[in-house]
Amino acid sequence: MTEDNTIFIGGKPFMNYVTGVVMQFTTKNADEVNVKARGKFISRAVDVAEVSSKRFLDGTVEVKDIRINSEEFENKEGKTVRVSTIEITLGRK
Amino acid sequence: MTEDNTIFIGGKPFMNYVTGVVMQFTTKNADEVNVKARGKFISRAVDVAEVSSKRFLDGTVEVKDIRINSEEFENKEGKTVRVSTIEITLGRK
Repeated sequence: MTEDNTIFIGGKPFMNYVTGVVMQFTTKNADEVNVKARGKFISRAVDVAEVSSKRFLDGTVEVKDIRINSEEFENKEGKTVRVSTIEITLGRK
Repeated sequence: MTEDNTIFIGGKPFMNYVTGVVMQFTTKNADEVNVKARGKFISRAVDVAEVSSKRFLDGTVEVKDIRINSEEFENKEGKTVRVSTIEITLGRK
């Protein structure tokens, strides 16, 4: 799968992301779409995956895999900060 | 697995939940612990699972399974509201 099929969840309007996922499956005919998020946007990524697969693509798309992980980075003060990540793979049934 | 091994994530201090998970594995000798959350607490559930398994129980406990789902309920105005849920199963390696 190429990175083109990945949707990164952030602070844009919720339906932008849902539409992005749905269009990957419909107009771009993707077999799989990855929904990724970090930190506080993880809850939103789950919402996007649930609404896309159950409300808009019900019967044709389902959750195939969910992975969680941690990333570490240095903040402005030079302190190491840990942040959780999620990656939800949606695919055709 | 009994419901005793389930930790529901809410608005209490973060380390309360991490301690809860760690104690299930250590003092209660559980084989599996379920971390559950709804809505905005989903991000926190992922944090609890990551910090418990990677910082406190590294090498002995790992993420075994992650399930997401939707629940519907009626709010005070009688409107049907959808909320996402997550269930993360941590288990001994």
